[in-house]
Amino acid sequence: MSERMEIIEKPEFDAAFRDGLETLLRWRRDVRRFRGDPISPDVLDDLLSLAALAPSVGNSQPWRFVKVNDTDRRAAIRANFERANADALNDYEGEKAKLYATLKLNGFDQAPVHLAVFCDAETETGHGLGSKTMPETLAYSVVGAINTLWLAARAQGIGVGWVSILDAAAVNETLDVPAAWALIGYLCIGYPEEEHDDPELQRAGWQDRLDVGKFITER
Amino acid sequence: MSERMEIIEKPEFDAAFRDGLETLLRWRRDVRRFRGDPISPDVLDDLLSLAALAPSVGNSQPWRFVKVNDTDRRAAIRANFERANADALNDYEGEKAKLYATLKLNGFDQAPVHLAVFCDAETETGHGLGSKTMPETLAYSVVGAINTLWLAARAQGIGVGWVSILDAAAVNETLDVPAAWALIGYLCIGYPEEEHDDPELQRAGWQDRLDVGKFITER
Repeated sequence: MSERMEIIEKPEFDAAFRDGLETLLRWRRDVRRFRGDPISPDVLDDLLSLAALAPSVGNSQPWRFVKVNDTDRRAAIRANFERANADALNDYEGEKAKLYATLKLNGFDQAPVHLAVFCDAETETGHGLGSKTMPETLAYSVVGAINTLWLAARAQGIGVGWVSILDAAAVNETLDVPAAWALIGYLCIGYPEEEHDDPELQRAGWQDRLDVGKFITER
Repeated sequence: MSERMEIIEKPEFDAAFRDGLETLLRWRRDVRRFRGDPISPDVLDDLLSLAALAPSVGNSQPWRFVKVNDTDRRAAIRANFERANADALNDYEGEKAKLYATLKLNGFDQAPVHLAVFCDAETETGHGLGSKTMPETLAYSVVGAINTLWLAARAQGIGVGWVSILDAAAVNETLDVPAAWALIGYLCIGYPEEEHDDPELQRAGWQDRLDVGKFITER
């Protein structure tokens, strides 16, 4: 039983903070173009601590963070991406295929930090609470941690790029992690080479942002 | 092609903002005990606009928000939860079963806003970019929107509770939405009755928060 039963004064977030939060949400971009300068290990660990403040189903904390440092492993991940991306390109034709081929979809080569993030589907932490009917909520908890990391990083001027064009099972093999760990995202992390408040795919003419009203209904 | 090619001055987030962000991350709790007072429709729509600033794979924006207003539909969702929760309770024995039965796992009755959030697995927005090898990234994009909503809400003093103990297919039927929409989360939203910076499941002795270092490895 937790001993922290005292009443704590709740924080008030003022208008200036909320404006800052909105600015952060607008500027939190998927970054694929990095400067090469390193990220201090302490800064990275602070970001991971903040990521772990994310909500998790049953307080299961199923996030597993793997810092990928080894050059050969990084090269294998890059080759994995190249295969998956060539395969994805085959799905497009004509102008869309030409445009796809020009898009920059990863920042492997310049990003000083590579972080693979997994969900341990067999964790006993949380004792299964909340994930019986929707077991995918374990993975969703890890996504929450990644999104938290993304925001915390941007507040420090650090960019994060989420690579999903990968054969996930091969990533597990390359990184020698348990098969029960499901890859959620492979993150490239570093200081951005350029700054934008609009999505790269919008700038490139691939897909505009649509009005949120289009996605709201009532019942 | 986007016309926004001008260079924009990037925002600097100062130490005070970062402290506030950390406070927000610590205080962003799953809320299950609500005061009954209403949330202004404009405030809710502002929160949904902020949620839609979340990253999405291929800029696919697959989030579909359903405001559940109808009393009968709300009652059907509650009954769905009761069935799923009774079934989940059967998985526990002894002290754990006793403790489970005492936990408050939803805030249906008091929360003024019920919001079902789905992922449209058949969306053509984003043209499939990034989701061929890992189609689950569409759902992950919606999770990002929910986490964004959660933080934006807390910054306004509003609490969000994510209910996952539900038969998802039955939720689609109750809300009469397309079968291709996958339920990601059913959210209860309102002003919290009490304020804490530690998870309810930790206070109740169900599951403590563990040190993040336990979940970090290197390769």
